[in-house]
Amino acid sequence: MKLASLKGGRDGRLVVVSNDLAWCTPADLIAPTLQAALDDWEHCEPDLRALAESLELGAVPRERFHEHEAASPLPRAYQWADGSAYVNHVALVRQARGAEMPESFWTDPLMYQGGSDGFLGPREAIPLADESWGLDLEGEVAVITGDVPQGASRDEALAAVRLVMLCNDVSLRNLIPGELAKGFGFFQAKPASAFSPVAVTPDALEGWRDGKLHGALEVELNGKPLGEADAGVDMTFDFGTLIAHAAKTRSLTAGSIVGSGTVSNRGSDGGPGKPIADGGVGYSCLAEVRTAETLVEGRPRTPFLKAGDVVRIEMRDARRHSLFGAIEQAVAAE
Amino acid sequence: MKLASLKGGRDGRLVVVSNDLAWCTPADLIAPTLQAALDDWEHCEPDLRALAESLELGAVPRERFHEHEAASPLPRAYQWADGSAYVNHVALVRQARGAEMPESFWTDPLMYQGGSDGFLGPREAIPLADESWGLDLEGEVAVITGDVPQGASRDEALAAVRLVMLCNDVSLRNLIPGELAKGFGFFQAKPASAFSPVAVTPDALEGWRDGKLHGALEVELNGKPLGEADAGVDMTFDFGTLIAHAAKTRSLTAGSIVGSGTVSNRGSDGGPGKPIADGGVGYSCLAEVRTAETLVEGRPRTPFLKAGDVVRIEMRDARRHSLFGAIEQAVAAE
Repeated sequence: MKLASLKGGRDGRLVVVSNDLAWCTPADLIAPTLQAALDDWEHCEPDLRALAESLELGAVPRERFHEHEAASPLPRAYQWADGSAYVNHVALVRQARGAEMPESFWTDPLMYQGGSDGFLGPREAIPLADESWGLDLEGEVAVITGDVPQGASRDEALAAVRLVMLCNDVSLRNLIPGELAKGFGFFQAKPASAFSPVAVTPDALEGWRDGKLHGALEVELNGKPLGEADAGVDMTFDFGTLIAHAAKTRSLTAGSIVGSGTVSNRGSDGGPGKPIADGGVGYSCLAEVRTAETLVEGRPRTPFLKAGDVVRIEMRDARRHSLFGAIEQAVAAE
Repeated sequence: MKLASLKGGRDGRLVVVSNDLAWCTPADLIAPTLQAALDDWEHCEPDLRALAESLELGAVPRERFHEHEAASPLPRAYQWADGSAYVNHVALVRQARGAEMPESFWTDPLMYQGGSDGFLGPREAIPLADESWGLDLEGEVAVITGDVPQGASRDEALAAVRLVMLCNDVSLRNLIPGELAKGFGFFQAKPASAFSPVAVTPDALEGWRDGKLHGALEVELNGKPLGEADAGVDMTFDFGTLIAHAAKTRSLTAGSIVGSGTVSNRGSDGGPGKPIADGGVGYSCLAEVRTAETLVEGRPRTPFLKAGDVVRIEMRDARRHSLFGAIEQAVAAE
């Protein structure tokens, strides 16, 4: 089943989307918003699935689904916890700046508390007030959970996954060192993120297994391929483990979003990998591109994002059909 | 005007509370929940104020207001950003562990991104799964904002304050060093916080001026006074400055909660101050009690919270009438 929130009001208007993303039908008789559906998933899910089936059969009134009319599936959420499950990414970034990475990073997930009070739409411009902040994209996979009790096991946590999405976790790289030095973690360095136009139940994703989403995460910058790393490869912590980490000392409310962190694959030699043009799988963020350049050439060559740049993040199935629709965002000077 | 959310459903049921906290009347014909009222404050505020006036006059049906029937004013919220505005507190804690505090801490606010997907009720037990985690209370003042645009000035940010509350920002002290060492800030170390039974508009608070709430924050542990620091004293950053800091790189959605951090006053000699029993204003968290003990006696003597302990946080006006009702929470082994 595929769900989306058409723009409108603070929380959008819930629609069921056809598997091929061509059609949608209003779901507001079941639940006005996705959050409302998640709040009462036990009752809403069967009705939403029946509606989805009717939509596939052409048995209900339908309208064309236009990705640019969609808000993020949850335009605002009560929880956004972003892991950093591709430890390879962390190791590389540290290596480039000559910093040791603690061994514990391979066993104890890194996770930051994100701001969730307003997300950008999947086709909404990324506002940039100051180019010197070092704007970067981060291609990620994210899940929306149901209620998760405190102390949930990895399996219990995994069973609470309701929907899967893609994410552009926008980062302001040059604000990060100062904030981390203060010791309280990210705040200004992590402005509003954006999510894919469509959220999909795990059972409708062939690549969903072992708590990971397998498949190439296609990241483009200004129409050129930047990354196609497989989100199911080198993911040290699966989503069950990430959610259980988030729920260790508190429960999570239905509608909580948990992210994978930047998708990143090791190079075949265990090193920083190669750009797509050189036969590698490329990179899902510019920080990693710059890290690879630093390791190979001694210094970064690729600049961070500037006004007018366009970022695109998408994942397709074996027949090249888009699974979640595309995040496509231009950078706009404020 | 005073507002509360009686327990019920995920978001409670909005009521208007009388100034003396004795009575309340349902506000659901205006807005079913406090978040709904904040989402459409321009329309709801005049109606809520009219209802509050009628309640004071005895002109509407009313029921007794029982603090223990109240959830936190926002039982869940889209944003919880907690500052650390009493820099004295930070300086002391650092001093006790022999760490330098950067001079910039006096000019650049510390703020962490908190989890907001579920708050404890003001009379709800604090669940403690493991005593070795080092459970602590933190007495704070917090505000709820309207929409705040990115880049808002201090004055614009201050004008967006809709409501004021008290907060118990629950912390797991022994989980903090490990999390801060990982560099991503607090996560597991900051479980669910609790807020006062009642949220109050700034105009109804005599102590609200210069973006600060003046008055003694009364903190009790097991019926004994622990702190009575004045929340308007030694607050290096007022709420306008804190909100503007939070909104530097992104907008804030209506219903965002911004906290002051642990209220803390300098001793008359500029040192760590004294316990109430010794003629001082005491402390609003156990970490600070332990810091003062370390500075004076060489090591901490007061333990962190254990099952059965009871924490109470309240503020009163000049006539000793409670302004927000009391946060009163027992610690419960899980």
